[in-house]
Amino acid sequence: MDTSNIIYLFDMIGIIACSVSGTLLARAKNFDLMGCILVAMVNAIGGGTLRDVLLNRHPIFWMVDMNFLVVITVTSLIFQAFFNETERVGRWLKLTDAIGLSAFTLIGLKVALSYGANYPVAILMGIATSIVGGMTRDIICNEIPLVLQREIYITASIVGALLYFLLQHLSVIGWLADIMTMLVVFTIRMLAVYFNWHLPSIRLRH
Amino acid sequence: MDTSNIIYLFDMIGIIACSVSGTLLARAKNFDLMGCILVAMVNAIGGGTLRDVLLNRHPIFWMVDMNFLVVITVTSLIFQAFFNETERVGRWLKLTDAIGLSAFTLIGLKVALSYGANYPVAILMGIATSIVGGMTRDIICNEIPLVLQREIYITASIVGALLYFLLQHLSVIGWLADIMTMLVVFTIRMLAVYFNWHLPSIRLRH
Amino acid sequence: MDTSNIIYLFDMIGIIACSVSGTLLARAKNFDLMGCILVAMVNAIGGGTLRDVLLNRHPIFWMVDMNFLVVITVTSLIFQAFFNETERVGRWLKLTDAIGLSAFTLIGLKVALSYGANYPVAILMGIATSIVGGMTRDIICNEIPLVLQREIYITASIVGALLYFLLQHLSVIGWLADIMTMLVVFTIRMLAVYFNWHLPSIRLRH
Repeated sequence: MDTSNIIYLFDMIGIIACSVSGTLLARAKNFDLMGCILVAMVNAIGGGTLRDVLLNRHPIFWMVDMNFLVVITVTSLIFQAFFNETERVGRWLKLTDAIGLSAFTLIGLKVALSYGANYPVAILMGIATSIVGGMTRDIICNEIPLVLQREIYITASIVGALLYFLLQHLSVIGWLADIMTMLVVFTIRMLAVYFNWHLPSIRLRH
Repeated sequence: MDTSNIIYLFDMIGIIACSVSGTLLARAKNFDLMGCILVAMVNAIGGGTLRDVLLNRHPIFWMVDMNFLVVITVTSLIFQAFFNETERVGRWLKLTDAIGLSAFTLIGLKVALSYGANYPVAILMGIATSIVGGMTRDIICNEIPLVLQREIYITASIVGALLYFLLQHLSVIGWLADIMTMLVVFTIRMLAVYFNWHLPSIRLRH
Repeated sequence: MDTSNIIYLFDMIGIIACSVSGTLLARAKNFDLMGCILVAMVNAIGGGTLRDVLLNRHPIFWMVDMNFLVVITVTSLIFQAFFNETERVGRWLKLTDAIGLSAFTLIGLKVALSYGANYPVAILMGIATSIVGGMTRDIICNEIPLVLQREIYITASIVGALLYFLLQHLSVIGWLADIMTMLVVFTIRMLAVYFNWHLPSIRLRH
């Protein structure tokens, strides 16, 4: 069974989710039409771009597959034209964003490993693919990155990565490892959203 | 007719304009002598640097042509030493900045196409060369990037790119296409400044 | 005499100092456990990463020597767990940070020169290695970069670089040039801290 189509589908769902949230934040900051599209792009493909640059992987993924730029631009335009009430999309956004997180993490891991990265670097590349886009969006919009504060993004990505390495060591067949990794990342993220989980700060001595 | 000298001249005018506006903003933020030079550099060559990194074009352009670093440093020092009243330079800055935009866009396009980029990627590289420096300057100085808000920068760059592609398809001779592209970018930008044009947000449903 | 061990030691001292200051600032901004580690990483290895990307030096240094990621993570965890009072570490932080600055500058210079960079580019790479991590930390935390304002960081780095070039021209033996360069950078920085030196803004006309 080939999971590449599923991963690609989830990737695109994540790209759409990032385009929407980038567009919404950019609009809240009174960016113009083009500014919103640009923030959507940064949010959607910024993480993967940093990953590719750090791994010296050229051409960058969105330079060879035009679907990324097209999907982001169309999504941003649609949302700028038709959606004013951000509340309406909130729940869908959390869901699609979690799907994206699962795909971004897995893609980051697989790309890094295929470029000879060891486990710690692969984990970092999974995290980078998942969160650097959103971080850069927040930085451009002059906000402190939410993802570093109280959202279990990085943790979900790390747990997924550790599971993926474990499944590889157990020689679990590829497609099953892919699916399980994405499922675990998605589930942790959705549970965190549902139960409003935050990773605590650790302070052992007071 | 070889336009490379004209492009280089316009490029340098843009570099000087960016150095001035970078220095002015950095000074308004109380950055010290070196901090102002660094912000001037980011503003002037940040966009082209990102373009070269994304296209895997090494060495980066300012590593082989020392004129860039020298011109930026000298410009920043002169402005730090002699100009206190920013109002005086406002009009000249808008003009030289528009000249720079036209050169940056054209150079971004030409470099991208020479590295095998397709049209959408080339447009993005033209935009990146033109605006990423100013964006990064604003981010360092903790301001929301002006260029994404109400200024027709990106639009001028895109229209210029589309014209350039069209002229190529019409087999218009190279130097004429170069000049026309820069002229159109410059004109759109100056008209936007003159008439205080802004790209509207689009909202079809209320 | 081989100075590579001393440079490596000073490098690690600087990495630890950056991890501590990154963690402290991230915590002040209420970042969670993982957010603090990530800011510590950006602070400690962000500058060297940009240097490697600009020089097309792959793999990036922390991808082949795992000590960097391990030391940063452990340092950040220890500080998150055991240190609440930032005042206590203030003096030690200034000292270790200055040691780091001397190592970062020298490493940046040596790497750049070994990749064929000329003097101005090598100076810039020394500065980039030294300050881009702290700048990016401040940008992520939505602060105006301290390093560009009133701290003699860049100046210490430049003076060290000029001395290093001079010693090379005088054919001073390698280990002595290394030690003297680091000593001068360290001394300038510590004097600046001790006497509260700032680089003035230059304004010749009022």
